[in-house]
Amino acid sequence: MAREAEGTLSRALVEQIVREVVTSRLADLAGDVPSRLVVQASSRHMHVSRAHLDVLFGEGYELTPERPLYQEGNYAAKETVTLVGPRGRTLQLRILGPIRRQSQIELAFTDAISLGFDNVPVRLSGDIAGTPGAHVLGPKGMVELKEGLIRAAIHVHMNPDEARDHGVEQGDVMQLRVGGDAGVVFSRVHVRIDPRARLNVHMDTDEANACALHLATEMELVTEKRGKR
Amino acid sequence: MAREAEGTLSRALVEQIVREVVTSRLADLAGDVPSRLVVQASSRHMHVSRAHLDVLFGEGYELTPERPLYQEGNYAAKETVTLVGPRGRTLQLRILGPIRRQSQIELAFTDAISLGFDNVPVRLSGDIAGTPGAHVLGPKGMVELKEGLIRAAIHVHMNPDEARDHGVEQGDVMQLRVGGDAGVVFSRVHVRIDPRARLNVHMDTDEANACALHLATEMELVTEKRGKR
Repeated sequence: MAREAEGTLSRALVEQIVREVVTSRLADLAGDVPSRLVVQASSRHMHVSRAHLDVLFGEGYELTPERPLYQEGNYAAKETVTLVGPRGRTLQLRILGPIRRQSQIELAFTDAISLGFDNVPVRLSGDIAGTPGAHVLGPKGMVELKEGLIRAAIHVHMNPDEARDHGVEQGDVMQLRVGGDAGVVFSRVHVRIDPRARLNVHMDTDEANACALHLATEMELVTEKRGKR
Repeated sequence: MAREAEGTLSRALVEQIVREVVTSRLADLAGDVPSRLVVQASSRHMHVSRAHLDVLFGEGYELTPERPLYQEGNYAAKETVTLVGPRGRTLQLRILGPIRRQSQIELAFTDAISLGFDNVPVRLSGDIAGTPGAHVLGPKGMVELKEGLIRAAIHVHMNPDEARDHGVEQGDVMQLRVGGDAGVVFSRVHVRIDPRARLNVHMDTDEANACALHLATEMELVTEKRGKR
């Protein structure tokens, strides 16, 4: 970049300078600066299939987005349902949209135990074969899920660029180190790579409370040596 | 050890053999074999002072031990009280005995949040200065605690021999690594040394649920390098 003459700047030169600065900032945003890590606690919730939504809320019912989630396209819906435990105790569950191929209920163990479910496994979202079922009540009807109750395994969403930056691939596990008064390292944070993803750890409320997420002063996502390829 | 005569053993020799075997076993127990690590989840509970027990249950009331705890002399009492949150919600709390110099209530964050307490700190037991207070109801009266609500910091009880074996001193922190499906490392496990202690990690229900303690297959107490002296 050259000045045309001492003390004066042509319009073309100003434009060129602006262009260079903006391009450099965009380059920072695109790759040179690591993506900001957002760590979030997911409260208990339900993902619902088309068929189950029909039963719970009525034929052809559409979910009403109430609040967008950090992962684009996902939202907390206005709609809630009632989960009935084996001893008749109940908990309210918010539905997260959009609808999915199969219904799934994600509980923290604290929730599961309070309801009397003693056999909920730790699973990745979508991997529900052989998990316990439950009864779910909506305003228009009841669904008996044959399976679908899980405690969601802690996981990190990221796009392929972020995965490359961290040296991880789909299915790897990473560590999340949370500092502060509690001080907890989550050793098995499952990597889920998607082109539309934003760098984002999802843990449940037990995990958030165990590590005192609301008081945490440092958080770091760490690639374990054995995770590198 | 010598035999007196082929095929026969005098009473004195038998006694000597028994004495040697027993001494060797005791040596194993005392130092050569590591103590068995017992990791336990503490549900929400209250420790109560003499003055508060008088108000809650009546003048001169004595706690009724229901179940001994692993640390000798401590017990879960038959007695429970009702903790009232800032928005009128309540939770039942079991009292742990024996009585203490000052009352203290230990909640998991899940409990605290469900009651509406949003400022409960992570503290070591006994360190309650400046912590939130609460109203507690017993069958004979109500106590307003000026302070005493904490989320107990995860800690390990051990005797001086076990501390020496682990290379730690009073006030150090250690790691507790919990394997299994969840996989959590607690990085700040506070060391509490007492001659009467039995090797025992106490965590709260959030921590137990976060690490899936009921499913955990491996647990290891680790002395961090910076903890060594």
